[in-house]
Amino acid sequence: MRTIDWVDGAVELIDQTLLPDTLVMLRVTTVDDLIEAIQRLAVRGAPALGVAGAFGAVLAGGDPAAIARLRAARPTAVNLAWGVDQVAAAPPDKALDVALRIRDDDIAACHAMGLRGASLLEGSDLRIMTVCNTGGLACVERGTALGVVRTLHEQGRLGEVLALETRPLLQGARLTTWELAGMGAPHRLIADSAGPYLLSRLKVDAVLIGADRVAANGDTANKIGSYALALGARRAGVPFIVVAPESTIDAGTPSGADISIEDRDPVEIVQIRGVRLAPEGTAALNPAFDVTPHDLITAIVTESRVIRP
Amino acid sequence: MRTIDWVDGAVELIDQTLLPDTLVMLRVTTVDDLIEAIQRLAVRGAPALGVAGAFGAVLAGGDPAAIARLRAARPTAVNLAWGVDQVAAAPPDKALDVALRIRDDDIAACHAMGLRGASLLEGSDLRIMTVCNTGGLACVERGTALGVVRTLHEQGRLGEVLALETRPLLQGARLTTWELAGMGAPHRLIADSAGPYLLSRLKVDAVLIGADRVAANGDTANKIGSYALALGARRAGVPFIVVAPESTIDAGTPSGADISIEDRDPVEIVQIRGVRLAPEGTAALNPAFDVTPHDLITAIVTESRVIRP
Repeated sequence: MRTIDWVDGAVELIDQTLLPDTLVMLRVTTVDDLIEAIQRLAVRGAPALGVAGAFGAVLAGGDPAAIARLRAARPTAVNLAWGVDQVAAAPPDKALDVALRIRDDDIAACHAMGLRGASLLEGSDLRIMTVCNTGGLACVERGTALGVVRTLHEQGRLGEVLALETRPLLQGARLTTWELAGMGAPHRLIADSAGPYLLSRLKVDAVLIGADRVAANGDTANKIGSYALALGARRAGVPFIVVAPESTIDAGTPSGADISIEDRDPVEIVQIRGVRLAPEGTAALNPAFDVTPHDLITAIVTESRVIRP
Repeated sequence: MRTIDWVDGAVELIDQTLLPDTLVMLRVTTVDDLIEAIQRLAVRGAPALGVAGAFGAVLAGGDPAAIARLRAARPTAVNLAWGVDQVAAAPPDKALDVALRIRDDDIAACHAMGLRGASLLEGSDLRIMTVCNTGGLACVERGTALGVVRTLHEQGRLGEVLALETRPLLQGARLTTWELAGMGAPHRLIADSAGPYLLSRLKVDAVLIGADRVAANGDTANKIGSYALALGARRAGVPFIVVAPESTIDAGTPSGADISIEDRDPVEIVQIRGVRLAPEGTAALNPAFDVTPHDLITAIVTESRVIRP
């Protein structure tokens, strides 16, 4: 099953807000419905957003206002604007072909990243730590960092995954566990704050994360919590590896300081799945991403190369 | 209102599991009921556990089996065993006097720590980051790290507190916000994983945390997430200050590697306030504390001195 696809003239996508409880496919036929799906994270993950942007630009049919709204639906992942731009630049009669090629390229890129990432790690019974969801649900199929995990599991070399729950929206607890259970890979869920500590106490072979935007100097924006893991990995001497397609690398952004970090609704912090956690009226600050400076990154693995910042 | 006290021959304590929604005082008359209250965190916080241990030893009336059970109710905070031992070593007719003195000493120590901690920080409009709850609810009155915040607020020098929610049991979201609102101190709640990142992006004047056990070399066990904040503080050049009474310093534990870290029930990770977060059957790992190595600690503030490890 694909996370997002073009089926009979519309975008079909898994509504990830309902996982792991219910698997529902949404059928989206307008740009505004797609923007709504993107903003409430029914579809999320930088590569999947690239494909959503491409399909959305097909739905926009050359309407510049719709293109602009779609392009700006979420600010941090560069892939969304990239996907939109690729299709918008094509002649109208080629738009769908370009979008379908972006989808197919994503599938092929995830295969290639899985093999290349796995080849960086030696041995077997490997323990991997990861944050957020970077699996098939973040792409079209297989995934980026979790695609490497899938490849390691297929190679019989995976010992265990330690998955950070990923507050506030729990992509780790809800989505990564669901994918790992589906592939039969051993895993344990941990609180986000336990990640850096467990790196200091357990044998962990690598931290594998995705990326929403890689700046020209290698600084990497990814889900909030990635930076803390990078600090913990450095202190513990554990490789910290970013897995992302070339479309995530943004040569137009010089450094991490230039990356726009999305601040999301404080309600995501003071509630969880509809249950209030804090006293009524509590203010909150909710940066959805953080930036890991390039000096903390061991390697960036793409579908075509390994970059060592 | 005191978090824990001895009233008419029994221990009275706030049931902190019900906050911030409901303020209920429990009246506890047996050691086993007190152990149950300690283990489900109706009473928590290292200094409050010291007082609970002292009052519990009075309830035990010299029964060695009850004393041993109470002493081992939670392993990480040294204060619990310390409070039990102080009372158990006293002649039976002096046991209550010793326990009441421990209560009064805690109140006085929090006053002193508040003033000493505040005197370490210069200027006004200070932004403080903290994890878990180290306020009056963790002690008898006022608190340790949050007691310093209270003193800064009384001195008109507090700008804002950034409070980590503190998964899994949300002592930050539920208790620290409740105390800060009660004292009228500006504050914003953040996800635990946002702490290290916001240290790199905002002007934060100090990270203030409590402690459950300080080893002889200065390594400090505290709520899970403290270590990640220490790494973030070091990278950002922000002072990382531990505030704890002398009774938290354990000369019998050489280093952090010798501190027993409590692993709590995985259900705390896969559920939150009764709502399931992860797929049925998901395994989890739930270390309740972590250890911050002494080289990452700027200062340890007690009621009688400032230690610079």
